[in-house]
Amino acid sequence: MIRISTVQLSVIPGNIRANFEQMEREIQNARKQNTDILIFPELCLSGYMIGDLWEQNAFLRECERYGQKIADAAENIIVIFGNIAVDPKKKNNDGRVRKYNAAFAACNGQFLKNDRGLSYTIKTLLPDYRQFDDKRHFTSLPELAAEENQSVSSLLAPFTFTIRQETLRAGIVLCEDSWDENARLSPMEILSEKNIDILFNLSASPFTLEKNDKRHRLFSASLSRLGCPMLYINRRGLENNGKDCYTYDGMTAAYDPKGTLLAEAVPYQAERSCFSFDIAAKKLTAEKEMKPFRGDMLLPALRYGLKEFLSAIHAGRVVIGISGGIDSAVNAALYRSVLPAENLLLVNTPTRFNSETTKNLARRLAENLEAPFVELPIDSFINETVSQIDDLQIPSSSDMKTLHLTGFMKENIQARDRSTRILATLSSAFGGIFTCNANKTELTVGYGTLYGDLSGALAATADLWKHQIYALGRTLNRYFDKNMIPDEIFTVRPSAELSENQDITKGLGDPLIYEYHDFLFRSFIEPWNRITPEEILTWYSENCLEEKLGTPVSIKSIFKTHHDFITDLEKWWNLFAGFAVAKRIQAPPLLAVSRRPYGYDLRESQIAPYYTDTYIHLKNSLLSNG
Amino acid sequence: MIRISTVQLSVIPGNIRANFEQMEREIQNARKQNTDILIFPELCLSGYMIGDLWEQNAFLRECERYGQKIADAAENIIVIFGNIAVDPKKKNNDGRVRKYNAAFAACNGQFLKNDRGLSYTIKTLLPDYRQFDDKRHFTSLPELAAEENQSVSSLLAPFTFTIRQETLRAGIVLCEDSWDENARLSPMEILSEKNIDILFNLSASPFTLEKNDKRHRLFSASLSRLGCPMLYINRRGLENNGKDCYTYDGMTAAYDPKGTLLAEAVPYQAERSCFSFDIAAKKLTAEKEMKPFRGDMLLPALRYGLKEFLSAIHAGRVVIGISGGIDSAVNAALYRSVLPAENLLLVNTPTRFNSETTKNLARRLAENLEAPFVELPIDSFINETVSQIDDLQIPSSSDMKTLHLTGFMKENIQARDRSTRILATLSSAFGGIFTCNANKTELTVGYGTLYGDLSGALAATADLWKHQIYALGRTLNRYFDKNMIPDEIFTVRPSAELSENQDITKGLGDPLIYEYHDFLFRSFIEPWNRITPEEILTWYSENCLEEKLGTPVSIKSIFKTHHDFITDLEKWWNLFAGFAVAKRIQAPPLLAVSRRPYGYDLRESQIAPYYTDTYIHLKNSLLSNG
Repeated sequence: MIRISTVQLSVIPGNIRANFEQMEREIQNARKQNTDILIFPELCLSGYMIGDLWEQNAFLRECERYGQKIADAAENIIVIFGNIAVDPKKKNNDGRVRKYNAAFAACNGQFLKNDRGLSYTIKTLLPDYRQFDDKRHFTSLPELAAEENQSVSSLLAPFTFTIRQETLRAGIVLCEDSWDENARLSPMEILSEKNIDILFNLSASPFTLEKNDKRHRLFSASLSRLGCPMLYINRRGLENNGKDCYTYDGMTAAYDPKGTLLAEAVPYQAERSCFSFDIAAKKLTAEKEMKPFRGDMLLPALRYGLKEFLSAIHAGRVVIGISGGIDSAVNAALYRSVLPAENLLLVNTPTRFNSETTKNLARRLAENLEAPFVELPIDSFINETVSQIDDLQIPSSSDMKTLHLTGFMKENIQARDRSTRILATLSSAFGGIFTCNANKTELTVGYGTLYGDLSGALAATADLWKHQIYALGRTLNRYFDKNMIPDEIFTVRPSAELSENQDITKGLGDPLIYEYHDFLFRSFIEPWNRITPEEILTWYSENCLEEKLGTPVSIKSIFKTHHDFITDLEKWWNLFAGFAVAKRIQAPPLLAVSRRPYGYDLRESQIAPYYTDTYIHLKNSLLSNG
Repeated sequence: MIRISTVQLSVIPGNIRANFEQMEREIQNARKQNTDILIFPELCLSGYMIGDLWEQNAFLRECERYGQKIADAAENIIVIFGNIAVDPKKKNNDGRVRKYNAAFAACNGQFLKNDRGLSYTIKTLLPDYRQFDDKRHFTSLPELAAEENQSVSSLLAPFTFTIRQETLRAGIVLCEDSWDENARLSPMEILSEKNIDILFNLSASPFTLEKNDKRHRLFSASLSRLGCPMLYINRRGLENNGKDCYTYDGMTAAYDPKGTLLAEAVPYQAERSCFSFDIAAKKLTAEKEMKPFRGDMLLPALRYGLKEFLSAIHAGRVVIGISGGIDSAVNAALYRSVLPAENLLLVNTPTRFNSETTKNLARRLAENLEAPFVELPIDSFINETVSQIDDLQIPSSSDMKTLHLTGFMKENIQARDRSTRILATLSSAFGGIFTCNANKTELTVGYGTLYGDLSGALAATADLWKHQIYALGRTLNRYFDKNMIPDEIFTVRPSAELSENQDITKGLGDPLIYEYHDFLFRSFIEPWNRITPEEILTWYSENCLEEKLGTPVSIKSIFKTHHDFITDLEKWWNLFAGFAVAKRIQAPPLLAVSRRPYGYDLRESQIAPYYTDTYIHLKNSLLSNG
């Protein structure tokens, strides 16, 4: 019986020294507990999403140096960990030094060799979809194999560890290596053909809603087929690639040879886990009970991400503009769930277009949250700006032009004034940041003002569709066990309240029909094969659009004619694929939770919207048939 | 003797229909001129930098459909063009449908087959460094070969064309295929071993300063070794990946079998070129003289990029805030070089901190450019905002806080007021955009205000170091053959003029010593192996820093002690690697000209700055030795 411990380290991206110090403490701690093997996650010294820092040779040398320090610290214990492996004799395809995303096993100052005599395992499958860029920096095992005219299976070998007279043959893989459904090669299969006792998967697997369910399905199927138990060690922490901030949920898991999930760490918690392993029986047992997690991950992910983000940028105080609407209310409650009330400053900045209803709701929300609150009317500033610019005479060589401000321009003046004059100034004086309260629906079509409500240090809820914002609001009220967000905020008509045309007292508000547009917009970006107007119009004409989109409303109840439907579709597609991209380029970073957040995950160019011939023919045919 | 024409198409990204229409006209035109072979560039129907549009199956189908329409249009002429090739029977590694970046040859409605019987050539080398993401979307020829257990050289075959009783064996490659210096495989070498008469390289090669020189060196060396002539057909146009806008310079080129550059199209111009080719003699001749280009590419690239960007977003009018300093002056002159004077609106927005000197210079600049000009003082707004926020009482449950605005906070209020209140409002009323006048030096350390001078639709000069801004100013004055930018703007002390501490009349200004910091900062990002404080301090201690950085000034004349040097280095490194990243995430798109623009080319994460052990030891040793 051997004892295996895992540490789902909260890796600090780019901070090799701090990560080493955490690991060193964990090694000492594990040794005290008579651990035989201690396992850390993928790239746990350097971090994973660190942009192009891999191009700094000083950074690579530091990774190597600290890798050796881990080996030195591994006195009388086998430490398995992910680190970059550099081969100075070879080059990557980009001409830079050869780098592998690798797993090492070390003991008493030495790196242990695998059955092929190599002192590390190279990641075989390198993801480069979604937010991943592994191939940009790392050479894969198949590339090395091709270069050396060898097969992958000849290079991919298990490690044999001798522990108190027992022999353990472990197959070590890295993250994507086990997500092999579309790959030509299965690293787990190759290893399991080499008489191994157990698989260790060292991961840096960013959280996405429903991803863990998929992992369990996928891993269970593979493991039951291979008849091999597995320990999956994932990291914790927060990383970003600029635009998108990803949490790592940890959730270290043990699977038996039938693929059954035996044990699972609590998401975002539980630093260490201990397992005993009966080699002969291939029996893996968690030393303390680790019940597989059941429940909604959204709020835990957002709260963890928020805490980690604020801590990483050393921001303890937050200014939030609250309008009395749902988006800002959910943001306020969400921040309140991770910060003391006095670290928040809630601000309502009304003009004559803001109703008493929403102003009162903003006030009540602040009272419920017990947070500092100020009301700063901005009418006079808007009026002064308007009078400074409207009717301004522009002299030029040939004539004199007079500028005019339309109602729409005045709406944008309000939005910019709120954020970049009031909130930005307040947040600097308050000693913190201000938030962007945008949701994914708005962000999709650019229903927001650049340098206005689309500004802030973080857009915590910008990866959530409007209906998910409402659901999160309910979840937050349950979390607080109190209606922090007043019920009326859930029922008031969503409106920007920037003009007479958005007067909620007259039933006027946002131009979006969220029950439909949420689902339409989702189809533009979230499916693996993205949907365009061509498919939408085809489904519409085949009367299966509701089913295909999963919208709860009847399309016919919204649009009376084909013309209405098509006008609406093109209006939003033009914005989504057009001007909204320009806005997203300058939008704040967001907390990623979906399978396709905007930013670095869904990569976009500023180009003109396009309609295929098939779409145009179908449209013409529908319109000519009335 | 056969006649080969090339079209360096100005491809419109994502607009398949419009690109087809251009190509159809070119085919008709070439047929009239008795062209035997007409060659278009890489991915000329779809565009190249189109983000993740490759995930839309409707878009892929449209590319295929229009590919067939090209074949249909190719009556009695061989048309060679780049297009996506989709193999619906196979999958990419990401599970999506198999896609190749491919080259097709078509005639009379048919796709011609190469010597292996394949109807297209697959790109062998897929770049994924800098701004490139080919592997994200396309499967390479080596991957296909591995999958089919074949060698790359067995799959990579020339096309044999029969033209008026003559036989032409052409090796067709795509862009990176000829940039093989770091690759294990040389597609050109493989093809030239197969008895070919000529190589065609179809490219979508984004412009970078000095890249064409490198191409000539690299291609010449390869071709002379292989003894093969080549036609290089590159596209024109502008594309972006959100943050970075790249021009394509065209510059179609002919090389003889000795690798000599015979002919070259004028950058950014010259739609068509015609060549006659004597197959037996391997002699390629341009029908009209095409003298290789000699000269500075910077201004042509920026002017072309600017024109294309404005036209792509349908913006004909531009508002530019001019301070009397060099950055805004250069931007104003640059925009003036592509727009009529009346389409510009120049704005000076002084406060009491702006000197008469710079206010007068702004006025003189506007006069020289003959552009509409307004002066809108903003002092009263700043004062009102300050009085609204400074000393504001924040009630909270426990106590009452009072906010205070520091001088630094007031500086940022000015910057934000200028851009997001004045310029944003003016530009909407003027019917256009406003510009971001940032330079690369400022952007490196975040010396600029978010939602202030770091806002705008485009940062045209943000890929230029400060010394390049000055040089560009001189070039612009030469371009206009007149000192549009007054001489004093080149000599006035650079200053933000946001406080008493930046009073140029007292010799106060920017904290940057551009003659040194430009070169220091460049080393952080532009070298292929990026430099960090570890190397900088090592070079400093070895007295070779000036030489290594290429700075024209003596380090010792700037910093009297090691302590001063190190304090300065760490101050800027902390900003570069720290808060400036947060600013860059929300900065406007820029016109890319360097080998490493910020944005999608240099990919960055918001993480804390790091110093290696080696740096820290060296620092301690220097400081302890005084």
